[in-house]
Amino acid sequence: MTETDICIIGAGPVGLFAVFEAGLLRLRCHVIDVMPQTGGQLTEIYPKKPIYDIPGYPMVLAQDLIDNLLKQIEPFHPTYTLGERVESLQKMEDGTFQLETSDKNIIKAKAVVIAAGLGCFEPRKPAVDDLEVYEGKGVHYMVRNPDDFIGKNVVIAGGGDSALDWAIHLSGLGSNITLVHRGNTFRGAADSAEKVVKLNEEGKLKLILNSHVSALGGNGVLENLTVVSTTGEKHEIKTDHFIPLFGLSPKLGPIEHWNLNLDNNAITVNVHDYSTDIPGIFAIGDINTYPGKLKLILSGFHEAALMAHGAYKYMYPDKRVNLKYTTVNGIEAF
Amino acid sequence: MTETDICIIGAGPVGLFAVFEAGLLRLRCHVIDVMPQTGGQLTEIYPKKPIYDIPGYPMVLAQDLIDNLLKQIEPFHPTYTLGERVESLQKMEDGTFQLETSDKNIIKAKAVVIAAGLGCFEPRKPAVDDLEVYEGKGVHYMVRNPDDFIGKNVVIAGGGDSALDWAIHLSGLGSNITLVHRGNTFRGAADSAEKVVKLNEEGKLKLILNSHVSALGGNGVLENLTVVSTTGEKHEIKTDHFIPLFGLSPKLGPIEHWNLNLDNNAITVNVHDYSTDIPGIFAIGDINTYPGKLKLILSGFHEAALMAHGAYKYMYPDKRVNLKYTTVNGIEAF
Repeated sequence: MTETDICIIGAGPVGLFAVFEAGLLRLRCHVIDVMPQTGGQLTEIYPKKPIYDIPGYPMVLAQDLIDNLLKQIEPFHPTYTLGERVESLQKMEDGTFQLETSDKNIIKAKAVVIAAGLGCFEPRKPAVDDLEVYEGKGVHYMVRNPDDFIGKNVVIAGGGDSALDWAIHLSGLGSNITLVHRGNTFRGAADSAEKVVKLNEEGKLKLILNSHVSALGGNGVLENLTVVSTTGEKHEIKTDHFIPLFGLSPKLGPIEHWNLNLDNNAITVNVHDYSTDIPGIFAIGDINTYPGKLKLILSGFHEAALMAHGAYKYMYPDKRVNLKYTTVNGIEAF
Repeated sequence: MTETDICIIGAGPVGLFAVFEAGLLRLRCHVIDVMPQTGGQLTEIYPKKPIYDIPGYPMVLAQDLIDNLLKQIEPFHPTYTLGERVESLQKMEDGTFQLETSDKNIIKAKAVVIAAGLGCFEPRKPAVDDLEVYEGKGVHYMVRNPDDFIGKNVVIAGGGDSALDWAIHLSGLGSNITLVHRGNTFRGAADSAEKVVKLNEEGKLKLILNSHVSALGGNGVLENLTVVSTTGEKHEIKTDHFIPLFGLSPKLGPIEHWNLNLDNNAITVNVHDYSTDIPGIFAIGDINTYPGKLKLILSGFHEAALMAHGAYKYMYPDKRVNLKYTTVNGIEAF
């Protein structure tokens, strides 16, 4: 069991920055994310994409922004539960909260901040016979631990950055990689696509274009799969793992059932402090909505600052919040 | 006469970032500031101070933040009127605005954004006989063009960073500098204070401690001044210029008379788009107020984004605003 001042659901840029703003008020944070790492969409979906609209950064790569935010919040020693989804949220009689994750971990907090972006991202599943039968038995929708695939036969399907990047990375680690793609051009970065083509020519991975995986087979665990070309030719490939990487689609998930007021899949908030209609629960970043809302990271940063003051008042209604500027003394004083 | 989409009053970090957010909607901006340079307080008062609460920057020097913002808005080609104060603001019958500066320059704009921070900064004037008589005739409260002082006798008064930095800088340019300070320790940076002491020892400037300037004299223009020590001894110094540097104090200035709704010297705004009670006039950053307001640069950035969308709607009520993300295509497309 973990006890904290503020439990933040979502470790994307806004959730991470909330740790900073809470920290300035001496509130400690525990951050939970369904992904096995921090960074939210920025790390999971577009780590190497340049972002141009973070104030003060003419350009910053998504993962660099996350790395900088992690460094910025380090002095406040946040704690994390990663790779687990918050399944339930319960408000206790004393106004505190109890959360339970998918792995049955309990977190007790004085306030809760939902910074879950577009919600949990669920993998887009391709139409492959018996796909779900082999989930956890050879079928994976994301690569949590690349070491698991060393020395194994792995078929990756997809034509975007994830498919290209993982094909290159796992091949380099020593997996026997086959990359199956429906088309003959890639949606992913041009230099990644070139690299995959080159690795194929060098015999370091096998590239199968104009084809898709149609069926899986095996005795209890995945042992083989069927690849069909656009011209209808079928052939079978022996494999230990199948990793279809067709992107992630957002789902609000359990949050939908927490009796929060929703508007078009977003949580309505009071812009004074980005509180929800349940006192003590706040929502910041892309998951909230209010008149004028823009889904910008920089707006989430502002929301995090006002939220922290609101959370402080919720926890300590009789204390006055002193806004200290960090300019002179830095953050060592906090 | 200048014509623009948005006239931004104030070239501090928030005013500058407003150029970016307006630019994403293809709105062009003209920025006016009473200071002779951009950057607002950050450049004028604490250019070398570290800031710790800009999201994504574990630490950034104030001037570096301004430099980065200037680079970020460069693609949108903002224009500037610097060193002039907006004296009057008039709303025309067609809903556009006409502004006039202290130098009688006219700016016509479709919308106005007040990003004037704590207002105009006025110099704190020391109690010196006949000080105002010699304003513009040898007395200066800020150094606009350092070259004006080359080869001249200059007395600087003060013990903070401005006094130290200008004493060092002008001495290096070839001014004959005397620095008069009431105490014998400095409020400014230790390394600057050490440098001044060293320059004094080397005969490159003259340091007079435990003293203040009490009176000015001259025939039409400044020719001499009287220095009094804490023990009461007086002596006269021949000088061409006297630059008292005792900091700046904020004043709302002419903005006070524009019929905007004020609350405790700040402009009240609607948080949907940070519009004031006069349609077409917006207020962002430290100069506005609303329930929950925190005077943080990061909040001004958010306000700038929502303001830009509000200004667009004010100018083009029938057009739909398309929020484009910059991640994929960068800002070249705008």
